[in-house]
Amino acid sequence: MPPLISLLTDFGVKDTYVGQMKAALLRVCPGASLVDLTHEVPAQDVRGGAFLLWSAVEAFPEGSLHLAVVDPGVGSTRRAVAARTRRGDVLVGPDNGLLVPALEQLGGLAAAVELSAAEYWGPRQSRTFHGRDVFAPVVGHLAAGVPLEKLGRTLAHLERPFSFPRPREEDGGPVGEVLHVDTYGNLITNLPGALLPARFRVHLGSTVIEDAPHAHYQAVTSGKPLALVGSAGLLEISVRDGSAAKELGLDRGARVRIEPS
Amino acid sequence: MPPLISLLTDFGVKDTYVGQMKAALLRVCPGASLVDLTHEVPAQDVRGGAFLLWSAVEAFPEGSLHLAVVDPGVGSTRRAVAARTRRGDVLVGPDNGLLVPALEQLGGLAAAVELSAAEYWGPRQSRTFHGRDVFAPVVGHLAAGVPLEKLGRTLAHLERPFSFPRPREEDGGPVGEVLHVDTYGNLITNLPGALLPARFRVHLGSTVIEDAPHAHYQAVTSGKPLALVGSAGLLEISVRDGSAAKELGLDRGARVRIEPS
Amino acid sequence: MPPLISLLTDFGVKDTYVGQMKAALLRVCPGASLVDLTHEVPAQDVRGGAFLLWSAVEAFPEGSLHLAVVDPGVGSTRRAVAARTRRGDVLVGPDNGLLVPALEQLGGLAAAVELSAAEYWGPRQSRTFHGRDVFAPVVGHLAAGVPLEKLGRTLAHLERPFSFPRPREEDGGPVGEVLHVDTYGNLITNLPGALLPARFRVHLGSTVIEDAPHAHYQAVTSGKPLALVGSAGLLEISVRDGSAAKELGLDRGARVRIEPS
Repeated sequence: MPPLISLLTDFGVKDTYVGQMKAALLRVCPGASLVDLTHEVPAQDVRGGAFLLWSAVEAFPEGSLHLAVVDPGVGSTRRAVAARTRRGDVLVGPDNGLLVPALEQLGGLAAAVELSAAEYWGPRQSRTFHGRDVFAPVVGHLAAGVPLEKLGRTLAHLERPFSFPRPREEDGGPVGEVLHVDTYGNLITNLPGALLPARFRVHLGSTVIEDAPHAHYQAVTSGKPLALVGSAGLLEISVRDGSAAKELGLDRGARVRIEPS
Repeated sequence: MPPLISLLTDFGVKDTYVGQMKAALLRVCPGASLVDLTHEVPAQDVRGGAFLLWSAVEAFPEGSLHLAVVDPGVGSTRRAVAARTRRGDVLVGPDNGLLVPALEQLGGLAAAVELSAAEYWGPRQSRTFHGRDVFAPVVGHLAAGVPLEKLGRTLAHLERPFSFPRPREEDGGPVGEVLHVDTYGNLITNLPGALLPARFRVHLGSTVIEDAPHAHYQAVTSGKPLALVGSAGLLEISVRDGSAAKELGLDRGARVRIEPS
Repeated sequence: MPPLISLLTDFGVKDTYVGQMKAALLRVCPGASLVDLTHEVPAQDVRGGAFLLWSAVEAFPEGSLHLAVVDPGVGSTRRAVAARTRRGDVLVGPDNGLLVPALEQLGGLAAAVELSAAEYWGPRQSRTFHGRDVFAPVVGHLAAGVPLEKLGRTLAHLERPFSFPRPREEDGGPVGEVLHVDTYGNLITNLPGALLPARFRVHLGSTVIEDAPHAHYQAVTSGKPLALVGSAGLLEISVRDGSAAKELGLDRGARVRIEPS
């Protein structure tokens, strides 16, 4: 059975771009098993896409393929790449930082190539849609068994134009920030569970949340904020039966300070 | 061939939650055939989700699996369950009423278990994402042939914290209400076609619709309201080339009275 | 392996209509490979759907099936049809013009039938949901190998209630209009690359874009407009790191004039 293939883009679902990309992949590898991560990365938000990809890849079995396209530099000098992780997954996309956090999450780089071998590209070539014309056909060939090394010239490393902010230590507790606001309005921070004291207080904006971590959303009354380690292994701030982003008036980048209690 | 699997959640499509859930399922049962019902149930709207699931399951072949997650109580005391219908379908999700109308639509309960057998859960366990960590792996095992009874301890029945309002009789005609407003703005009522007289007048809000039921949307002129038995077998109010919800200023819960004519 | 099947509708993703349609198809042809083009065609916008279908079909392998439903006339006298192209693809949907541009893109009509053979329809019949009750079961039978000719009585041609505006010649250069605004706010015109001079100036509304065509989005500074031949082979107007539709205040139908330079 061919490997599982994840797809993440900023193409949206109002146009047919995602469908065209899938057709280009399935034309090369009929019967491949595709899983949409999301196609609603904000347009051209490479960092946002990198976070979403990072947070999702661990749910996939070893040896999966991950196709990610948030690509404001399409057609310019940015490279198109494929990178294999130490445990055997392959990530494919633009070399603009999008793939790097997921690559590290999956054990780090084992091998990478620039997608320079045009015989693995699709039959049409446009200036603006490498998702359909380059990336998807290449992923189809990988799924069908073509070795990474055939896809182009070897690269020693990927570009790292950005990295996620790291937690700092301040007054005896970790300080971090909100990396992502999810559909429910949960504020997902850069503070991993392992950094947190057993019991603590959360300071963010003008709000203080006592008695953290909470066991679940129903540990507080309706409309109240709470803090727990969420499904990505990171501290998340929520409001029961509501949106923390809206209720607390906070967004990506907001500062979060942990005080042991 | 493994059974068809439907998926319904309130996870939205901006995050990767749906993709992570599918990966967790396909990791257990590669090649399973997944059909998204919707992931846009309003956040934590268990009743809304129950209606949508109810309205969709009859389109699936007997023996299908249905995974539904609208789960504000995740991680608290609410149980995680799987329930088999008399005709052999299995529904999996939280025991908060979400599954009950669909279960009845498919012939009623034949057997149910609490998902207490941790050997069928996924490799990671979070407090907030049982969709990925419990429900999806369990559905994968069901699709791969594990019997329901192995998944945990037997339950005699599911919880029924709510039920849909039933039509009443008043002045010689049925009275009901709007259960759901769909994408087009159609008002879907709780009045099944079998309850309706041959010809009737519909009273809702300050609007009266004459000459119902109509044969199709083009039976009235553009912008006018009409009433017909829709694809769920229920009376629906529409506006030709427009949104009945918007044009008539009505929403879920609006009262609908039928007068024979 | 059964052919690839594309799906395009205006059903949206908040309801379960798309899922019900897929279930009806997979019940007839389990294991069929489905690709969503989009389900966000604006409600009942047959022309918009026709453009989106036209722009996507060429990405699919020969012999694919395309199921498209934007169907304000459902249940009235409009016919339900299936049409085979000269190269062997089959398009299925309402006979309201939706399928015609895609059919021509794929080489033109080889054979067409009205879907009058009820033995290939689904087990339920509603007045409002031929996507589930007629079209999807028929596509399932086609995917499973039933010949087109069995599905109903032969038609000599499809209806053509509209056609896309054609470019004109004016002052030595082509004049066209915006056919579609995509997710990114790109303005996609009806001017194919083959009609354009080597170097040109674009006039649209009060904006003049010099030095076209541009090589890629990064050929201008952030916030500036540019013009290039996009992934559909048509001239597109974009704004780097922004939305051309919003920045230039333009929409479908806007006039675009090309001046050679």
